[in-house]
Amino acid sequence: MMELEKLCALAKDAKYKLAGLTTEEKNEALFVIADLLKSESATLIAANEKDITAAEAKGVPAPLIDRLRLTPARIDAMSEGLRQVAALPDPLQDVLDEWDVPNGLHIRKVRVPLGVIGIIYESRPNVTADAFALCFKSGNAVILKGGSDAIHSNTAITALIRKGLARQGIVVEAISLIESTDRETTKQFMQMRDYVDVLIPRGSAGLIRSVVENSRIPVIETGAGNCHVYIDAAADPDMAEKILINAKTQRLGVCNCAESLVIHRAVADTLFPRLAKALHEKNVELRGDDTACAACDLVIPATEEDYEKEYLDLLISVKCVDSVEEAIAHINRCSTHHSEAIVTEDKEAAEKFLSGVDSACVYVNASTRFTDGFEFGFGAEIGISTQKLHARGPMGLKELTSYKFRITGNGQVRS
Amino acid sequence: MMELEKLCALAKDAKYKLAGLTTEEKNEALFVIADLLKSESATLIAANEKDITAAEAKGVPAPLIDRLRLTPARIDAMSEGLRQVAALPDPLQDVLDEWDVPNGLHIRKVRVPLGVIGIIYESRPNVTADAFALCFKSGNAVILKGGSDAIHSNTAITALIRKGLARQGIVVEAISLIESTDRETTKQFMQMRDYVDVLIPRGSAGLIRSVVENSRIPVIETGAGNCHVYIDAAADPDMAEKILINAKTQRLGVCNCAESLVIHRAVADTLFPRLAKALHEKNVELRGDDTACAACDLVIPATEEDYEKEYLDLLISVKCVDSVEEAIAHINRCSTHHSEAIVTEDKEAAEKFLSGVDSACVYVNASTRFTDGFEFGFGAEIGISTQKLHARGPMGLKELTSYKFRITGNGQVRS
Repeated sequence: MMELEKLCALAKDAKYKLAGLTTEEKNEALFVIADLLKSESATLIAANEKDITAAEAKGVPAPLIDRLRLTPARIDAMSEGLRQVAALPDPLQDVLDEWDVPNGLHIRKVRVPLGVIGIIYESRPNVTADAFALCFKSGNAVILKGGSDAIHSNTAITALIRKGLARQGIVVEAISLIESTDRETTKQFMQMRDYVDVLIPRGSAGLIRSVVENSRIPVIETGAGNCHVYIDAAADPDMAEKILINAKTQRLGVCNCAESLVIHRAVADTLFPRLAKALHEKNVELRGDDTACAACDLVIPATEEDYEKEYLDLLISVKCVDSVEEAIAHINRCSTHHSEAIVTEDKEAAEKFLSGVDSACVYVNASTRFTDGFEFGFGAEIGISTQKLHARGPMGLKELTSYKFRITGNGQVRS
Repeated sequence: MMELEKLCALAKDAKYKLAGLTTEEKNEALFVIADLLKSESATLIAANEKDITAAEAKGVPAPLIDRLRLTPARIDAMSEGLRQVAALPDPLQDVLDEWDVPNGLHIRKVRVPLGVIGIIYESRPNVTADAFALCFKSGNAVILKGGSDAIHSNTAITALIRKGLARQGIVVEAISLIESTDRETTKQFMQMRDYVDVLIPRGSAGLIRSVVENSRIPVIETGAGNCHVYIDAAADPDMAEKILINAKTQRLGVCNCAESLVIHRAVADTLFPRLAKALHEKNVELRGDDTACAACDLVIPATEEDYEKEYLDLLISVKCVDSVEEAIAHINRCSTHHSEAIVTEDKEAAEKFLSGVDSACVYVNASTRFTDGFEFGFGAEIGISTQKLHARGPMGLKELTSYKFRITGNGQVRS
């Protein structure tokens, strides 16, 4: 058995032990690990320094190096994240349903962990601790495959977490890190269906596409957000500007920010130039269709590709439509089904939009930026699912579980 | 755009219309189609005759020809099946959750259809009508890819269903049948991720494996059942015999019948020979480990492969264990995670089994044969899911849905 397969097999063995931990055992372990991250932060910073040096030598751009860096403040935040997950309710305590059938069988539908969760990510090293905490609290073993840039940091964080688990007498394979960071290993990992129950890619659209195309393990797609704000003919102009500017510019580079403005033609010559000016003042470049270009000279012509893009940048596409129905059809065609908003005072248009738009989160008169586990009151999240199978929208602890049926009888057989 | 892609694109367009149908519109259409199947049964029987003739010419074995045959009684049952689905509650009426967040946003979590469901099947032509009814009632469009042996029957059933839909003014692409039955088309179909939301294979283990390996669309695995009955040291002997015989022999060739007997070594020399004799009297061949062979001369030696097999035949594997823990470990290693039963009077052993066995349905003192949508009280089912993502166990109407969040505000933006 090759090394990767062995690692996956050990995680599978561990999942049966983890499913049996009590809430208290899990929470105590999270507290112990939270303390360790702080008391041994020097180890983490030293390991992180190696990643930073290597990244600088490779000429990695400064903003990416900043994302990579672990500071005492960031380690504190990571530690605090573990405590927050400990404070969340244990999803495995829920009985989802319970009933008797006429033949006397008693059926209980109860939550169970998914089992082994694989996470392939490119992002900051704090994901290592965050993802572990959510998977562990929901009774799962996690196998992490991080990016090569953060390998020393990820290895050090994993070692500290395992130290804490061992101290509590918990199977250390609750967390495993795949240390080889080449693409071939990633490909092999995606074939480990016998050991891994679900794969969650976290990162760029390219990473997610590659996982979807190559994985034999069931995948949950997260985080691709080509989000739309539709300004209806009946929009309140001030609210339209406030919501659009917030959705596009309050934070760039996140999956719930707006990438496209859809606007009713009835207000193309009136409200739109004001919105375009407000975006321009925030340094946002507008790329629009003929109507948008004609209505305002701040707009340059868009190509069809612009409407498919998640810019994550100071750019927005603009599409003019004749009706809320056309807006819905355009959004359903171009969106990644993450989050979309309508601004309108027309109740009928709002209802059509809520029903017709096929996205995880659909807003009336509010910014798309609220699609977030904390904003929804779920607590920390593993990602925002943009698919329909299993979970949709913010994925918290409950979304990291499955269920099973426990059936008790007294000798029933089928006739 | 090639023909297959066009068919998928039309189904995608249809899904948005289907999601908006009222419960009454859907039920009326199901009644109209149920009537049509009966009043135009001669058309179906004539089409089916072509399949039967072709199958006979190909030398298809008699039991398979019997499965293929449509009789007036089977058409009545198909028609009745549509009426039963009409009688089930509409899953899209459920509000799953609803709450306000401190900033004043109101969040509603509501059920929505999955969208376009692809079903690849090999089985009898009645699946065409059954699968349509479940997908349609839950608001989905369905694309069917049946086996070549049933192509004329499937085409005729689909045409009748579309006739009924058209009569009710409903988009006929609620059902589509891929008429080309070659493997290349199946492969292309499995790449249609832009149009198809989920793929459900129904059929042999080989078919399911091929779909899992080749599909880029999310898959729900159904129906592979290597089910175990574990007879504990503390089993009631009469109940053990009754449950084992029922689970193995009440109906052969179904996914919830037992394929393996696991037995505690403490009763290997006492209870086991009695069980072996009872199985033998039902013409079941036993393949066991050394202990089983030594305990009873009705047992021939098993190979490791026997423990992995879904025989669907008059065969059972036998494994002797020293404890309930060893039974659980053996089952978790070999099972397809469908249904497993323990027979015991020992409450602690029962609880360990219920918690420890990682299968969709786990039974204490009852036959595995109860894993079924009707037996559970769900009504008709599209299959028994053996995976953990999305749905597990019997999949009825609710399991053919996803959800979305409808969020209403009055100008909220994120700060």
